[in-house]
Amino acid sequence: SQWQRNCLEASIYLQEGENNDKFYTHPRKLEALPAYAIAHNTWFHVLDLCAALLVLLLAACERPALDFLQLPVGVHGSLEILMLLLLSLELGIRMKWLGWKVYFKHPRTCMKTVILCIMMVEAVVVLIRQTNHFRVTRGLRPLFLLNSHYCRGVRRLARQTFQSLPPIFDMLVLLLFFMLIFSVLGFYLFSTVPNNPYFLTFKDSFISLFILLTTANYPDVMMPAYNESRYSAFFFIAYLALELYFIMNLFLAVVYDTFSGFEKEKLKKLFFHKREGCRHAFKLLTSRKEQNSITLPSFLGLLENFRPKLTRKDGYLMFKALNTSQNGKLSLDEFYEIFEVCDLKWKAKNVDEDLWSSNFRHPCNKIFKGMHQVVTSKWFDYVVYFIIFANFVSILFETIQLSLKGVVVGSHTYTLSYISIAFVAIYCVEAMIKILGKGPYEYFTSGWDVFDFLVTVVSLAGVLGEAYSDSFYYVIILRPFRLLRLFKAKKRYRDVLGTLFMLINRLAGLVIMIILVYYFFAIIGMEVYLNTDLTNCCKNTSVESYYMKTNTSQGYYYLNNFNNIFFSGVTLFELTVVNNWFIIMEGYAHHVGEWTRIYFMLFYIVMMVVMNIVVAFVLELFMFRINYRRKLNLDDIEDHLKIQRDLGLSAEELDMCENKNVVVTASHIINQGTSTTPGAEYRLPYLYRGERLRSKDDFSLKMYSDEVKGWIEEDQNQREEIIHG
Amino acid sequence: SQWQRNCLEASIYLQEGENNDKFYTHPRKLEALPAYAIAHNTWFHVLDLCAALLVLLLAACERPALDFLQLPVGVHGSLEILMLLLLSLELGIRMKWLGWKVYFKHPRTCMKTVILCIMMVEAVVVLIRQTNHFRVTRGLRPLFLLNSHYCRGVRRLARQTFQSLPPIFDMLVLLLFFMLIFSVLGFYLFSTVPNNPYFLTFKDSFISLFILLTTANYPDVMMPAYNESRYSAFFFIAYLALELYFIMNLFLAVVYDTFSGFEKEKLKKLFFHKREGCRHAFKLLTSRKEQNSITLPSFLGLLENFRPKLTRKDGYLMFKALNTSQNGKLSLDEFYEIFEVCDLKWKAKNVDEDLWSSNFRHPCNKIFKGMHQVVTSKWFDYVVYFIIFANFVSILFETIQLSLKGVVVGSHTYTLSYISIAFVAIYCVEAMIKILGKGPYEYFTSGWDVFDFLVTVVSLAGVLGEAYSDSFYYVIILRPFRLLRLFKAKKRYRDVLGTLFMLINRLAGLVIMIILVYYFFAIIGMEVYLNTDLTNCCKNTSVESYYMKTNTSQGYYYLNNFNNIFFSGVTLFELTVVNNWFIIMEGYAHHVGEWTRIYFMLFYIVMMVVMNIVVAFVLELFMFRINYRRKLNLDDIEDHLKIQRDLGLSAEELDMCENKNVVVTASHIINQGTSTTPGAEYRLPYLYRGERLRSKDDFSLKMYSDEVKGWIEEDQNQREEIIHG
Ligand code: NA
Ligand code: NA
Repeated sequence: SQWQRNCLEASIYLQEGENNDKFYTHPRKLEALPAYAIAHNTWFHVLDLCAALLVLLLAACERPALDFLQLPVGVHGSLEILMLLLLSLELGIRMKWLGWKVYFKHPRTCMKTVILCIMMVEAVVVLIRQTNHFRVTRGLRPLFLLNSHYCRGVRRLARQTFQSLPPIFDMLVLLLFFMLIFSVLGFYLFSTVPNNPYFLTFKDSFISLFILLTTANYPDVMMPAYNESRYSAFFFIAYLALELYFIMNLFLAVVYDTFSGFEKEKLKKLFFHKREGCRHAFKLLTSRKEQNSITLPSFLGLLENFRPKLTRKDGYLMFKALNTSQNGKLSLDEFYEIFEVCDLKWKAKNVDEDLWSSNFRHPCNKIFKGMHQVVTSKWFDYVVYFIIFANFVSILFETIQLSLKGVVVGSHTYTLSYISIAFVAIYCVEAMIKILGKGPYEYFTSGWDVFDFLVTVVSLAGVLGEAYSDSFYYVIILRPFRLLRLFKAKKRYRDVLGTLFMLINRLAGLVIMIILVYYFFAIIGMEVYLNTDLTNCCKNTSVESYYMKTNTSQGYYYLNNFNNIFFSGVTLFELTVVNNWFIIMEGYAHHVGEWTRIYFMLFYIVMMVVMNIVVAFVLELFMFRINYRRKLNLDDIEDHLKIQRDLGLSAEELDMCENKNVVVTASHIINQGTSTTPGAEYRLPYLYRGERLRSKDDFSLKMYSDEVKGWIEEDQNQREEIIHG
Repeated sequence: SQWQRNCLEASIYLQEGENNDKFYTHPRKLEALPAYAIAHNTWFHVLDLCAALLVLLLAACERPALDFLQLPVGVHGSLEILMLLLLSLELGIRMKWLGWKVYFKHPRTCMKTVILCIMMVEAVVVLIRQTNHFRVTRGLRPLFLLNSHYCRGVRRLARQTFQSLPPIFDMLVLLLFFMLIFSVLGFYLFSTVPNNPYFLTFKDSFISLFILLTTANYPDVMMPAYNESRYSAFFFIAYLALELYFIMNLFLAVVYDTFSGFEKEKLKKLFFHKREGCRHAFKLLTSRKEQNSITLPSFLGLLENFRPKLTRKDGYLMFKALNTSQNGKLSLDEFYEIFEVCDLKWKAKNVDEDLWSSNFRHPCNKIFKGMHQVVTSKWFDYVVYFIIFANFVSILFETIQLSLKGVVVGSHTYTLSYISIAFVAIYCVEAMIKILGKGPYEYFTSGWDVFDFLVTVVSLAGVLGEAYSDSFYYVIILRPFRLLRLFKAKKRYRDVLGTLFMLINRLAGLVIMIILVYYFFAIIGMEVYLNTDLTNCCKNTSVESYYMKTNTSQGYYYLNNFNNIFFSGVTLFELTVVNNWFIIMEGYAHHVGEWTRIYFMLFYIVMMVVMNIVVAFVLELFMFRINYRRKLNLDDIEDHLKIQRDLGLSAEELDMCENKNVVVTASHIINQGTSTTPGAEYRLPYLYRGERLRSKDDFSLKMYSDEVKGWIEEDQNQREEIIHG
């Protein structure tokens, strides 16, 4: 019916608001709806994600690969075509739902289409020729992952990064400018110094100063000139002070500034987008009779499409939570809050909160109550921390003793020391007391307790491993894990770790972005340096000894190669750390060609930008948390981790929710009166509490609540302009 | 008279408020006043500063010193005693003014006394023995400089640094904790790997991982283990990811947070302190007749002591500026503003602002007006930037050509190219047009124009130098200085540089602090490593080649020594840059003793903290500026660099101010009425403008103006509590 179709379309608008999908991609025709439904199905998202991941993982099996992972060209080629087909399935469905015109208006979709076509052609070519050609386009595979539904966070981060490129670029120009000026000076000043290969030509001068920006050739680059004249130190000190300590710090400041600026802008945009979605949905849900409000049946109809898993009770509670005016129908202003409440998990709440053990028989409940008191006391914690610290000292002491004795660790038989057993036994007892005292439910839902429990289990596994296989000394490395529990002891550490747990999904996005950058450069490195072996290369250069491999001396740097995706990853990590990276660069520059420097220098610049974004990101999160606490005068941010709503239901309301035969009506809400006294909900017999975790955006909206009021006004003014103008 | 004495004491209270001197050091007796006056005399401050600086500089002439700077023990010993006597003079005067009890209550004074005594004894011992003994106490000399009047900024910074040590310490413990855990693991995992000197014993393992935290031994420390098993890379990646990329970033966040927190707290304290000073002064300046206000004569009497150089007109203008209620007498609330206005420079202001050339004769004024229009047009700037850029390209091109030809730079005769002359000529012409067009006064008071002028003068000197001494090729290094002018071209650079100029005195404080830390470590290094020569040291160790000095191979690292204060400075800078610092440490550890590692590790930790503070500081300043601009909706912060007040005087008022015989009276202010319409001051014939540069504190108070209102309330409540309770 029309009503059902309206409910469905309204739910689609809400979904678009929630997912930050553009409204011009909204399905306009009835026939588009099945395709839309498939494209937004969870299983379909998972399928798409898996295909994107598997395409990425193919790099491990394609040439060049580790021997035991290498697949025949036919196999990995076919696999690739299969995955690409799966990925294009999403595009096909999208085309069906959007139609040609809108499809090609959406930039991300167009890009994906083009890349898919290229890759498909290349994969077919590989299958036909039965050999891999020079395929740097594989480096674009991460874009499929970025495009998948579950990587929204990473996509947002990547977009933010691209948007902050203009100021970053300005600062890079500044860096380059001074680098060139100092290269000119360096060439004039030091090209005649004996034994000085660093400034022989202008090119040498520039490369030396580029490496000096990373500090990797300091002080060596200075020493010949310093030997000639002590005053030459001024040149290098001035260069480093200016470029490294000054401009690089400004760089961070600029990145931090743009980054935190965009953060707020994005929040505002999302806020407006969600409100627009609400308005579209609202318009569809009003009836002719009730032109400016939504009735309970329409609302429940909406929820059947928008959140199909919710029960009638959940829906009713949500409606009641939204209906702050308590008149039994939702106005637009009330409806705007739907994203606040739609993910709350509602649970019946006991008015008198007891211990889990309160209902046990007589002696037991007393014992458990005692345990509870012990477990929640401060002294219990102090004793545990002391024991863990003692364990730390004992591990250190044992290792030092072993080291002093000169025992060969590998061949040593480890007799399981009583001390070690004692400590793990204490940890087990402690965990037991805590579980019994607090009750299993409370214990296993508290983050820190679960952390303790996991650490204890790992320790126990370690001890058992030591007991049963005395030569398997690797198990020893599990020992120090017990010590991680010490971080709960101090407020500041708890604080820091708490913040990190809170923001773990955003940090994960950052890590994924770095991995994707690595992937891109690894593919290019593998294609460009295919079959390059640097063993014993670079004779008669300054890096000769690093690549030497003879019976007497080992330089080992030939191990830093691009022979497969994993080795490439390690090599790129070494380039990220930046120390001695020029040795790897010099090796390839001498052996493959001078132009390969571009690869390494480009990677350095990209990683410098990424690393500055990492620092800016961590700073931003950290400062946000601190400002949040200051603004809301919180002692501990953990108190604010959850959004909670308490609501009461009367007996009739509960009956209506649980009995499908009773007709739903919002009249109960009206009859309960509009009392706004706090605690009014307690007069109703059945109490429910809705809970969900706060996301970063929730925190931000709370933090900038003053500004949000301004945004709401701005939004309303704009609407009025549209209506009246 | 009593009135004069009251004025003097009130001015002392204001001075104490201004200088952030504790009020318990206020001179209580009449006899203390002369001593107080001497101690707060500018010349005395200069003398004290010079003595402190000279004591520092003595290190250049004491053993070990450069040959041509070395002074006989008798000479530098006597000089030192002289300087110490000068420094103790300040203490003596302080004692006279404070009295015993208060003197020993002031921690900074006590510390200075103790250090002075120790140094005096040591200096006498040196003179008697006629030889220097092991004198690490020389490292405390920077404290004298910190104590001097003009180093208030550095003192404040140092205090802030010390206050932020507790959280820093917590993070260091975290770093150390993981370092120890990984050392245990590293020892168990890698001590049996062949060719692996990095993890042989637990001590080796710890030192390797300490160095790895600075990245200086990466990837070398990994290579033997990586050669044995590729999986060992995980250990190092985990370590670096955790310690370097994670905890070190947190470290910065924590430092940044505490640092910016203290900044605001300090601002509040200073604000309260100044208000208290005002209250004390106010109480002294009220008379029995006027119990709650200050009359103009009292105010002028105060200024005669507080700002002796001001004229009667300045004083009257200040009074009028403060007297916002326009009733001819200052209330306490009006008097609080005195620090806002007391440093304004008052100047007569022409109502119709003309070009400097407006009064020239007929054809001239037209020509100059045309010049003015040219100079202020956008296109003029664009042309100039284009020329400078062309100059940059030509310099680069010339250098590259020289480099490609393989010319030996030192012996090359430089024929002054016409291009070079042309560019400098253009610059000179441009400067001339600008001076004539804008007028010399306006030109030489604009920061950017002065910058341009200086660069042009240096360029001209460079060209003349090249013309007259064709072998003196060092003059060429002056060429690129012209290019610095390009930074005005882009808004972002102008912005960044503008901020830096604005905050240059605070950055200078930071640089001074770093130099003092260097001084401390340099003195210790010079005493501890006296007569240590590392040439050809460390045979049969991994760093042998770095210290080699034979006819065929040069390691040069023996140049990184502590042979005098300048060489020590360079060595410490190398340790600050951190790259390859362990080679210097290993040299001393092998040659002098293993315990010397403590020196190098401690220096690393100290510099890590200092460098984090530098970054936090730059970030703080930068973010402050950005937030300031956002808050006040400024396009360019340069508009806010100055505080300006406009005031009008009537003819009678002017006469009263300039004619000493006329009795001063505030009645004119009352007669002018209390009109608050803006522009009211323009009705008066003689306009004056008071100007001064805003300090960082002024900016902060403006930025946090909302909170400042709260502070004022807090202050008033506290006072009322004191009065009523
Ligand atoms: Na390095
Ligand atoms: Na480094």
